Amino acid sequence: MSIQTRPYAVLCGGLGGSRFVDALARAAGHEQVTAIVNVGDDVEILGLYVSPDLDTVLYTLAGLLDEERGWGVRDETTNALEAAGRLGGETWFTLGDRDIGLHLVRARLLREGVPLSEATQRLAGKLGVAVQLLPASDDPVGTFLATPEGELDFQTWFVRRRHADEVTAVRYEGAEDARPAPGVLEAIVGAEVVFLAPSNPFVSIRPILAVPGIREALAGKRVVAISPLVAGEALRGPLAEMMASLGFEPGVRGIAAVYEGIATEVVVDPVDAGELPGALVAPIVMVAPESRAEVGRAVLEAVR
Amino acid sequence: MSIQTRPYAVLCGGLGGSRFVDALARAAGHEQVTAIVNVGDDVEILGLYVSPDLDTVLYTLAGLLDEERGWGVRDETTNALEAAGRLGGETWFTLGDRDIGLHLVRARLLREGVPLSEATQRLAGKLGVAVQLLPASDDPVGTFLATPEGELDFQTWFVRRRHADEVTAVRYEGAEDARPAPGVLEAIVGAEVVFLAPSNPFVSIRPILAVPGIREALAGKRVVAISPLVAGEALRGPLAEMMASLGFEPGVRGIAAVYEGIATEVVVDPVDAGELPGALVAPIVMVAPESRAEVGRAVLEAVR
Repeated sequence: MSIQTRPYAVLCGGLGGSRFVDALARAAGHEQVTAIVNVGDDVEILGLYVSPDLDTVLYTLAGLLDEERGWGVRDETTNALEAAGRLGGETWFTLGDRDIGLHLVRARLLREGVPLSEATQRLAGKLGVAVQLLPASDDPVGTFLATPEGELDFQTWFVRRRHADEVTAVRYEGAEDARPAPGVLEAIVGAEVVFLAPSNPFVSIRPILAVPGIREALAGKRVVAISPLVAGEALRGPLAEMMASLGFEPGVRGIAAVYEGIATEVVVDPVDAGELPGALVAPIVMVAPESRAEVGRAVLEAVR
Repeated sequence: MSIQTRPYAVLCGGLGGSRFVDALARAAGHEQVTAIVNVGDDVEILGLYVSPDLDTVLYTLAGLLDEERGWGVRDETTNALEAAGRLGGETWFTLGDRDIGLHLVRARLLREGVPLSEATQRLAGKLGVAVQLLPASDDPVGTFLATPEGELDFQTWFVRRRHADEVTAVRYEGAEDARPAPGVLEAIVGAEVVFLAPSNPFVSIRPILAVPGIREALAGKRVVAISPLVAGEALRGPLAEMMASLGFEPGVRGIAAVYEGIATEVVVDPVDAGELPGALVAPIVMVAPESRAEVGRAVLEAVR
């Protein structure tokens, strides 16, 4: 596996994270970007290793993502899942047929002892994705959420229970024993700018930072957080509610507080200009793929 | 796993075998039949355990078989396979999406340590199949064919090379160390009649008989072979050519010779009446599902 140092490293997870990596790759070129991706949501479904954040960024960059749903492959069918369900397999986590094709190839690589990072690089290469995609770790890290109903693993909380349970604390199981995947520390240390993508800080970015060595590698670097909140709301997902229940103001000031001591700057959307003294300002809403290059260019301009 | 003794036990493999089990089940009732199924063709594809003969008989009995193709599930898609192929997975063995749903459920059971026989019973139960389906063995048995191009495993010979290579010998790897699956010997010993389905003797029936104990259990039983050849031809597949290259006359007399010392009787189609002295005669062509009950009744009448 060849590891490269590139000008931009992005810590990311989730749909917002994948869109920001796409924005940056469109603006700066795939070859200028390393994405360091959360693995805290990874889950085994029907015996397959599913890594939702790696998959979403891979599918987004390959132009395969179902942009309407925000996950999975477009033009997808679910015949395997339906058949498995009829035979007693679990169906609460939707895996489409094309998606299963990827999981089958990756699951076999992993069973053969190929690390997740190497498997990811091979899959990205086959899909023509030249962004360097690195899982935060090849070791298991699992995000668990404390709720009034007890502690829930991420996918149970997010998918099964539709993130309806209030989150009072978050922990990252296994993180203390996990090692950064090959290339992660080099990508951070060698980057001109490290971005924290507009992902959920608690379930996407912090599980990356919880891997020993990664936070330390950020010390002294220029670390630019892209606000995942615009006008106090996440474009998608339960971040605003989590901010409140975890004791942060649900807005760009709260984001700055969450990343205090980690991010050196925060980029906020023009609608939030003035809310956070010293913030960089750029349009950061990038739902449509066509608008992403522009967002990427604006963010690069803002940090220049 | 509950094991039952039933009036009819059928040793079988392949499409002809599955159709005969279906014929018998339609005529006598699912609950009267045990099918003892060849596992010599089993193969791992994309990390999934594929058991073509068990799958074909299961899909046939559940009414899910693609009867036109003679394998796989009807109304099938192949999106997972296409995606896997794009990512470097093998595509020479076609697995449809619905079929993969079954394989995912079974592969996980097997990885959890559930024996193939138990996994088969669970899948059959979910599909409402009341024929007792037993793999010949829970242990690996692999059919290998000697050809002028060297020795080939069954699927390489049959699927990859489209059974174009002349077969000069057949062996069943692992058979001597394999044990009959739970219930197999009891099903044989307790049956009133044991049928050898109109399957290919060399690649469907003999790999079952090669498992120590199974052939011995047939001693003293009434063993009725249904001829897989009608007017010297297999309805499908390369049996006639194999008979010739392995030194047998490609016709019902050759079939009687192959099964000498094993079968006590042979059932031949009316078009072959007179070819084999002492043969039972019944119409045994059963391509269309609707005609199968009639074939089953005629065979049961012939052995009565």
